[in-house]
Amino acid sequence: MTKVNVGRKILSANETYALKNSELLTQQGNRCFNMISSPGSGKTTLLVRTISDLAGALKIGVIEGDIQTDIDAQRIRATNAPAIQIITEGACHLSAAQVHQALQKLPLNTLNLLFIENVGNLVCPSSFELGEDGKIVVLSVAEGDDKPVKYPAIFAKSKVLLVNKIDLLAGAMVDFNIERVKADARRLNKDIEIFPVSARTGEGMQAWYDWLKGQIAKS
Amino acid sequence: MTKVNVGRKILSANETYALKNSELLTQQGNRCFNMISSPGSGKTTLLVRTISDLAGALKIGVIEGDIQTDIDAQRIRATNAPAIQIITEGACHLSAAQVHQALQKLPLNTLNLLFIENVGNLVCPSSFELGEDGKIVVLSVAEGDDKPVKYPAIFAKSKVLLVNKIDLLAGAMVDFNIERVKADARRLNKDIEIFPVSARTGEGMQAWYDWLKGQIAKS
Repeated sequence: MTKVNVGRKILSANETYALKNSELLTQQGNRCFNMISSPGSGKTTLLVRTISDLAGALKIGVIEGDIQTDIDAQRIRATNAPAIQIITEGACHLSAAQVHQALQKLPLNTLNLLFIENVGNLVCPSSFELGEDGKIVVLSVAEGDDKPVKYPAIFAKSKVLLVNKIDLLAGAMVDFNIERVKADARRLNKDIEIFPVSARTGEGMQAWYDWLKGQIAKS
Repeated sequence: MTKVNVGRKILSANETYALKNSELLTQQGNRCFNMISSPGSGKTTLLVRTISDLAGALKIGVIEGDIQTDIDAQRIRATNAPAIQIITEGACHLSAAQVHQALQKLPLNTLNLLFIENVGNLVCPSSFELGEDGKIVVLSVAEGDDKPVKYPAIFAKSKVLLVNKIDLLAGAMVDFNIERVKADARRLNKDIEIFPVSARTGEGMQAWYDWLKGQIAKS
């Protein structure tokens, strides 16, 4: 049998929606980042502080993914930013189709930056493109410094690593060697930007904000 | 068409292996607990301390599940307990078939307690029975007190909730209302045993050890 190369990649349903999302976001002039981490690394707190501190400079919207509850979307809306909650009812990651529906409900033409806060899970969400411009992995220092070697995929695929809760490093409350994390993450991904931050105290957040503003300037 | 009820549940491949594992463990007189949590809640540190503190009282073996590396099995073996590492190479949970293979490599007839430390993931592992006598969910206080309502399945299915890293509650380093966690977990699961512990300082561990000893006495 002769194989005919039709010169076209067959896209999965998820990839098809991811492509649609990407086209829509580009058309509307929105940069979009897909935020991925374990449960409890502080993604929502990071977003709340980022939105508040950058109010006036950037117009930010959020899509929240959770297994259950709309607690996170409520926290975002308290900053006056628009937020759409996706409740996955058990599913361990967001799909591009779910994000596609949520995009219809956001005032994209008034925004320049969209964050998708994925379901808290350091494993599964890394395999599903949502149409984002890049992934951002968040690691809390309370989780330990062995996470890049133990969960390499998301560190290999992310544009940015936010090492959060660095206020807990004071007084040696947790055992965490940040140089080990940086070296291991860069071994997996030489281009990854790494920002040690505390969303609670604000320490280190400025460098992250400068990076975000640089991303908007580029688009 | 007439439906004929053959009065037999068709088991999935995973359930078939889970049943085999359960039979083997019962035959060998081993109690087995499947430990599930987010990455970095302190499962391995909890096991290392439990094994060391109970040396002489209980003979404990461990099956370690990780996406990559055998760091955790090495940590367990340093206590002289037998440990088998399963590397899932990307898979987000352990399967009963993987555990079945690991069981062949453990000296089960010399043990009375087996822990399976699942892949760090608060979502997927809760859906896969491994043949255990019960699930143990670990939640670090650094992860926040909204986790039972946001990730209900594992709290609903577990025999025990270990609230770990309670040493971080000192000095209000983290915002965590343990009474909220207890109430939310018990709303999902009225029989769940809850032990606030610090695997780092040893605080609260005795109640957990007493519970474990009670489980062995029963078997």
